[in-house]
Amino acid sequence: MSDRHHGRLAAAAEGAGAAGFAAVMVAPSPDLAYLTGYDPPPFERLTLLVVRPGSPAVLIVPELEKALAQECPVGREIEILAWTDGDDPYEAAAALLPGEGRIAVGDRMWASHLLGLQWQRPKVGFLPASSVIWRLRAVKDDEELAILARAGRGADETFREICGLAFEGRREDEVAADLARLLVENGHDRSAFTIVASGPNGASPHHAPGSRTIRAGDAVVLDFGGELGGYFSDTTRTVVVKEPPEGFAEIYDLVREAQEAAFRAVKPGAAAQDVDRAARDLIVDAGHGDEFFHRTGHGIGLEVHEPPYIVEGNATTLESGMTFSIEPGIYFDGRFGVRIEDIVAVVDEGAERLNRSTRDPQIVS
Amino acid sequence: MSDRHHGRLAAAAEGAGAAGFAAVMVAPSPDLAYLTGYDPPPFERLTLLVVRPGSPAVLIVPELEKALAQECPVGREIEILAWTDGDDPYEAAAALLPGEGRIAVGDRMWASHLLGLQWQRPKVGFLPASSVIWRLRAVKDDEELAILARAGRGADETFREICGLAFEGRREDEVAADLARLLVENGHDRSAFTIVASGPNGASPHHAPGSRTIRAGDAVVLDFGGELGGYFSDTTRTVVVKEPPEGFAEIYDLVREAQEAAFRAVKPGAAAQDVDRAARDLIVDAGHGDEFFHRTGHGIGLEVHEPPYIVEGNATTLESGMTFSIEPGIYFDGRFGVRIEDIVAVVDEGAERLNRSTRDPQIVS
Repeated sequence: MSDRHHGRLAAAAEGAGAAGFAAVMVAPSPDLAYLTGYDPPPFERLTLLVVRPGSPAVLIVPELEKALAQECPVGREIEILAWTDGDDPYEAAAALLPGEGRIAVGDRMWASHLLGLQWQRPKVGFLPASSVIWRLRAVKDDEELAILARAGRGADETFREICGLAFEGRREDEVAADLARLLVENGHDRSAFTIVASGPNGASPHHAPGSRTIRAGDAVVLDFGGELGGYFSDTTRTVVVKEPPEGFAEIYDLVREAQEAAFRAVKPGAAAQDVDRAARDLIVDAGHGDEFFHRTGHGIGLEVHEPPYIVEGNATTLESGMTFSIEPGIYFDGRFGVRIEDIVAVVDEGAERLNRSTRDPQIVS
Repeated sequence: MSDRHHGRLAAAAEGAGAAGFAAVMVAPSPDLAYLTGYDPPPFERLTLLVVRPGSPAVLIVPELEKALAQECPVGREIEILAWTDGDDPYEAAAALLPGEGRIAVGDRMWASHLLGLQWQRPKVGFLPASSVIWRLRAVKDDEELAILARAGRGADETFREICGLAFEGRREDEVAADLARLLVENGHDRSAFTIVASGPNGASPHHAPGSRTIRAGDAVVLDFGGELGGYFSDTTRTVVVKEPPEGFAEIYDLVREAQEAAFRAVKPGAAAQDVDRAARDLIVDAGHGDEFFHRTGHGIGLEVHEPPYIVEGNATTLESGMTFSIEPGIYFDGRFGVRIEDIVAVVDEGAERLNRSTRDPQIVS
């Protein structure tokens, strides 16, 4: 068994016990990949890892994927229980569980599977496993940090190169295709998302790039990332085409200052919400609180969005090795939006940016 | 509002009422795309469609995706409720629900969301929505059938072309890359899966193509499909490299006969399990029941696997317009596997194949 996954399974079992859970149950998802190295796609057939304090882990798999599961990093060491089409896999899972008490289930398990388990165990309290698993996943080891830094450099080079290409007169989805190509050319295994939101579309933070033709005088929000070795990059810059729209310069400076203030608030021992407040206070004081209508950031690793979330109300204490985005934005309906986003890692001295693209305003042609 | 989605939403509301559900709740998934045309990726932020008998549909979305949701085919007609980071979206959803009774949730909703809703409504019985939604989705309209047929033709042409390429001396993952390329060249928007399982690897039905070098005398299972306009192709053929392994010819003929027998069993009014039995009886009678350890098929449409499942115990009555795979297989551990798969559509006269690749044994070089 790989030492890495052995340690993670042991930590999950210990965490489950400490939190009073009889078991942690995880279906195909980044949680399963993290704990076992096994990463099949989620399907209607039940695949389920059952981690119990004081007992060896068990992996329930469809018979036709048994050989596949046995080849995973922990496949020869943990017990694999195969079930055949026509059998009830939830009954097989229930046999490993107590009739009462509390059980934790992974965030991404499909409802069809959770309902199947709940049907078998109506007296058990099912609760989110994130409280156990996220603490393990949130603190990255050196190997994970190195991969995230490599992804960040690939995103930086992608931004540098896209700024050299034409924007004016081209469609958003054409520029998005360039971003996707550049992410792969710069070391990513695949492009994961490429938001190109020009002019008024920039006011929609998750805009899907479409047929709008980019014009001189547009601000363009570029929010893009790819997957590299199972981990993700995610960066945002807002550029202007030839000349900025009216009122842009002042808002850009404000977002940049807010992003910088949040970055300076990051250190071990700070709360996640402190980082949100550092960015938000500046923007609220400048009279634009209503135009900054999303959290300041999200954790990143095996998922693009994962804990810790950088949001008011999240008192989670930051620790060295945590990685997350800092991405304040201001959005004016019908006019433009500005967002600046870097991935940062908490380090003993404070924080370190994993994206280093310039934050000076960039003019493209 | 598009007539198509209007009709589907109305049918879902009616089906919910008929089944005694106070609401059907659907998160980002093929269910949501089917009902509304809105197809965002699933995320930790709650997006939730609430369909209630006798009330207009409501779509709960994160504030930063409100503009995106408004642009979807039903975005200007149904009520959109936006929530902001830091608010509790499950509380907002619960306000639309009764305190007791039964509520249906979509199969693919994440556990984190279902647990959030259950926490708000502890006295409500949550049950799978598939009983309401699958009947709608399973019967394809003419436009859907045309897309599935187009995808099937692309898969057929992919098989024809791959048979002309070299197998001997190349790695499984190289042949898999060729399949992925050919799927796109033959009209698919993207490749979805490309199983290349050579020699002994053929005994693992969901084998992940790896570094094994294909040799003369191997049987090679090719199971591949792509996405086209939101719908999927999925076909399997088993070829031999130069000469068949010992015992192959007889097993190939048996699988081919079983696939043909299952095809002949398809007609409106038959039960799904009748189709499984038709294939399985032949294989069991030939003494290979233990080596056919998976169901005979699965529905296909907006998902690669969806109801109706062609499996013992499923008494679902087949109707004109249903589409599913017929894919019996026989697997010998350490030696080889054989599987033959076509997608078929139920038609008034019986069944129609959407894959037409030859089922005669193919020898590749």
